[in-house]
Amino acid sequence: MSEYRAPTREMEFALRRLAGFDEMAKACNYEDASPDVVAAILEEAAKFAGNEIAPLNRSGDEIGVRLDEDRCVQTPDGFKQAYQQYIEGGWAGLQFDAELGGQALPFSLAIPVQEMIHAANMAWGLCPLLSQGATEALSENADESLKQRLLPKMISGEWTGTMNLTEPQSGSDLATIRTQARPEGDHYRITGQKIFITWGEHDMAENIVHLVLARLPDAPPGVKGISLFAVPKFIPDADGNPGERNDCYALSLEHKMGIHASPTCVMSYGENGGALGYLVGEENKGLACMFTMMNNARLTVGLQGVAISERALQMARSYVAERVQGTAPGDQGLSPIVRHPDVRRMMMTMKALTEAGRGLAYSGCVAVDYAKHAQLDAERRAYFQRRADLLTPLVKGWCTEIAQEVTSLAVQCHGGMGFIEETGVAQLYRDARILPIYEGTNGIQALDLIGRKTIRDRGLALQELLAEMRATAADARAAGVLESQRLDAFEQSIAQLESALQQVLDSSANEHFVGSVAFSFLMLTSTVTAGWLMVKSALLAADDSEGELLPARQATARFFVDHVLPRSTGYLASVLAGEDSIMALPETAL
Amino acid sequence: MSEYRAPTREMEFALRRLAGFDEMAKACNYEDASPDVVAAILEEAAKFAGNEIAPLNRSGDEIGVRLDEDRCVQTPDGFKQAYQQYIEGGWAGLQFDAELGGQALPFSLAIPVQEMIHAANMAWGLCPLLSQGATEALSENADESLKQRLLPKMISGEWTGTMNLTEPQSGSDLATIRTQARPEGDHYRITGQKIFITWGEHDMAENIVHLVLARLPDAPPGVKGISLFAVPKFIPDADGNPGERNDCYALSLEHKMGIHASPTCVMSYGENGGALGYLVGEENKGLACMFTMMNNARLTVGLQGVAISERALQMARSYVAERVQGTAPGDQGLSPIVRHPDVRRMMMTMKALTEAGRGLAYSGCVAVDYAKHAQLDAERRAYFQRRADLLTPLVKGWCTEIAQEVTSLAVQCHGGMGFIEETGVAQLYRDARILPIYEGTNGIQALDLIGRKTIRDRGLALQELLAEMRATAADARAAGVLESQRLDAFEQSIAQLESALQQVLDSSANEHFVGSVAFSFLMLTSTVTAGWLMVKSALLAADDSEGELLPARQATARFFVDHVLPRSTGYLASVLAGEDSIMALPETAL
Repeated sequence: MSEYRAPTREMEFALRRLAGFDEMAKACNYEDASPDVVAAILEEAAKFAGNEIAPLNRSGDEIGVRLDEDRCVQTPDGFKQAYQQYIEGGWAGLQFDAELGGQALPFSLAIPVQEMIHAANMAWGLCPLLSQGATEALSENADESLKQRLLPKMISGEWTGTMNLTEPQSGSDLATIRTQARPEGDHYRITGQKIFITWGEHDMAENIVHLVLARLPDAPPGVKGISLFAVPKFIPDADGNPGERNDCYALSLEHKMGIHASPTCVMSYGENGGALGYLVGEENKGLACMFTMMNNARLTVGLQGVAISERALQMARSYVAERVQGTAPGDQGLSPIVRHPDVRRMMMTMKALTEAGRGLAYSGCVAVDYAKHAQLDAERRAYFQRRADLLTPLVKGWCTEIAQEVTSLAVQCHGGMGFIEETGVAQLYRDARILPIYEGTNGIQALDLIGRKTIRDRGLALQELLAEMRATAADARAAGVLESQRLDAFEQSIAQLESALQQVLDSSANEHFVGSVAFSFLMLTSTVTAGWLMVKSALLAADDSEGELLPARQATARFFVDHVLPRSTGYLASVLAGEDSIMALPETAL
Repeated sequence: MSEYRAPTREMEFALRRLAGFDEMAKACNYEDASPDVVAAILEEAAKFAGNEIAPLNRSGDEIGVRLDEDRCVQTPDGFKQAYQQYIEGGWAGLQFDAELGGQALPFSLAIPVQEMIHAANMAWGLCPLLSQGATEALSENADESLKQRLLPKMISGEWTGTMNLTEPQSGSDLATIRTQARPEGDHYRITGQKIFITWGEHDMAENIVHLVLARLPDAPPGVKGISLFAVPKFIPDADGNPGERNDCYALSLEHKMGIHASPTCVMSYGENGGALGYLVGEENKGLACMFTMMNNARLTVGLQGVAISERALQMARSYVAERVQGTAPGDQGLSPIVRHPDVRRMMMTMKALTEAGRGLAYSGCVAVDYAKHAQLDAERRAYFQRRADLLTPLVKGWCTEIAQEVTSLAVQCHGGMGFIEETGVAQLYRDARILPIYEGTNGIQALDLIGRKTIRDRGLALQELLAEMRATAADARAAGVLESQRLDAFEQSIAQLESALQQVLDSSANEHFVGSVAFSFLMLTSTVTAGWLMVKSALLAADDSEGELLPARQATARFFVDHVLPRSTGYLASVLAGEDSIMALPETAL
């Protein structure tokens, strides 16, 4: 597998200029997050990801993980050592409380770092991803003593964390969770089985803190009777060190299509009387606690889509420059295949989708920082919260869908070699396929966007975004950054999104309509938003200080407007056609 | 993995009514190909595929193939026995000469049979697929004595065949082939290495006839200096039985993302002085001989796309009917997920794409029969040849692209279970990924469509097709089969294709334009043609004799018009935008 080189220049532009990190850092009093610090962190992270994590990606896929006789998971060679370096580099605590050992930097500054890690090795990266989610959930919901007991070691990275939601009968719908929690003094005893637990057991850290959704004996049925518990693999002793082994074990590992090096565990709690667990937040409010973690995890899963797209783009780029085949138009003799227009089309598609996805993901994460930390009036903070809420399903949904397209195009650019495992690009394609599924399937994201994020506020958040899109179009026209024909096309796509929104609001009482068009509405909203970010990006690059970036930015924006944005027409047609022909055939006749 | 049940009713409708098999059989004097015979063959094939081949699909993927110390390939358990049954059932010779042991039935009647085999087990099915291609190439190009020597055993299936085109430096571009052929009496000695040879070595048949592209010592450079040779693994003796072992061996097998049970061999010719080969056709005309075989192989690879889509649809159908999760609109309590509109959207998409793909593939194959065998005047036969030529890249290109979408949707319908190998749907997704690559990448198909099949005849073949589309729209309107709004949308898509054609013809001198838009033009042409077949299918089903089919046909056609056909607008926009933003960035800036 070819090397991974983090595109730090692209990332800085996407973060600081396009997503507005610098203004956010100012508004949030993040005095340490200066441009120099940002650059230094990206530089160091790029070295770590490229030199230490990326070389383990292929071998990790080949070796996979193994559950030994002692019910311990053996990770592939080199994984443990790389994790040790991750801890030593201080990467685990970038965005967490200084008082608990973190570096108190913005959440969104950790995002390009995470992108690099996932691009280098998605299977490995899932361990920190889940840990960060668990750390966030505890930071926001645990009481002070539990925080003190668990967080310092989690923020240092010495301990990792997991999310335990799914049970065999309970996937997208958590209402049917059966795992039991029984009160016992200052703690609880947990009994039940959880499935699909990413990094639920492994040998990279001395302890693992499982966050587990379970029901108290007297809990009301459904989602209002779910509580959240922290269940450490080893119960911390009085000094905060791992003590007694808790009653929770990995029963088996799944054989998966991809991310072979990430142990996906069936976890068993309470085989010997109940695993000791600590309540996180209030009883019966577990789902809300889990959601604080899940929202950010959805953003980072979207980011994984960007990351693996970038890796696929890089692999394809080096292959098409070297592979010689046929004679391209205008050439004499044999040409590297990058000179064939159809290959160029694939490369430009990959490049444009990846850049747009990055812009979208970073923008979502900067909005989260604003909403949480900005020293602004309540109205303005509510605006950023709406923006973060609106962008989350777009980032998770669209960036993971484009990852399918980009990794598939990368396979295609390799021709027959793309189907051979040793080439490495097939792994990216297999790994990427989990992204539209986990952390809420993209169908769930679509329902989140159309329901909670659109119909519930009667389109307010989307209207705000649409207004900004219109303003960007006007600015671009005034600055002469793109041809007016292309800006017309962009404005037409804005109008399409507006009419889809109107149709959704008009038909919101029709549940079959809502569910039927949700996915197309997600794709339409995302595509137009991505188009907006591409136009904005060309506009920003026209600025003097970024002058050198302008030609490439404009070229990618033009390509996006010409060849990607027109997909919006198809999505709109789907939304307008509604549920009629989707629901017409009886389910037995499908 | 769930069972496979061949949709014989659907297949009969697609073949006899939609693709016009009955009229073709009449025009070609295929007196044996009566409706009863068709039904009986499909019935028997369905049993064979469902009961014998399908159960070996999962295990074949898990076990894979192995090259032993004697350079023999060991196939997975059961493969050999199933192949024996295939021979005994007479399936290998359906469409070949009665004089050489075949059944002299139409090529297109073998097509649903092949669809069943590929749906049951694509990896296994590749062995007959390649054999049939080799048999065709020999039937059409070999001299009488070579035919007598090789074909009876190939038509019976006792011997299999392969295609040896690719070399490490020679993939899409065959001009650079280096394998040498040296004349020696009445035969030749072949020396060189070939890669990606599907079923190049195996234990299912007593002999393997390799068709090998190679160069004579005095051959002109490029594609005009390539000859075709038949190189049997065992040289037939005077009685036509396998004799002396020939100097050709499998060197190694590829580790692939999918079709694990299909041995993809690196083949070595002439390690000990040269493999004995017989010339097929004339010297230096090898590429043309190979193309007679490749064209039909392209149709059958497209058919594999339909087949694996059907299998994926069936797996998803059974899962979504059984999996209970959440409460669907209008339901009380938990629902099977098929009742959720977003799941219904995925199912309808899979169904519509698969049906349209089947119609397209069968239509292409019926056109091949017409062109070859119809007792019609030269003009009419030329018309069918144009139609077959035009549809071939659509079948190969579009049916393999939709196979990516359909198998991916099937994975998605399974949620987390879709990513687990034991479920089986992941295998379909992995297997399907080869389809847009082999037998000419879809980029090559796109160039074939826009160049040889469109620009070369100044759009004649496509204009003929467009006229038939218009006629179908008028007929559907007259019959009141679909709502006029939907027929408007269909006619609009026809107009879009017409304007794309015009643009292509106007810009045909611009090579960068042609290559840049070729893929979008392929997708546009295919989507509109598929839409036409869906409308035609609803119209045909309205006929009295198919009355019971009407509701389902109409529903799927409506869905296609509402939710798939609108993609045409995006493809058209891409064609009209042309090469500008595709070629703008220098290749070093990608």
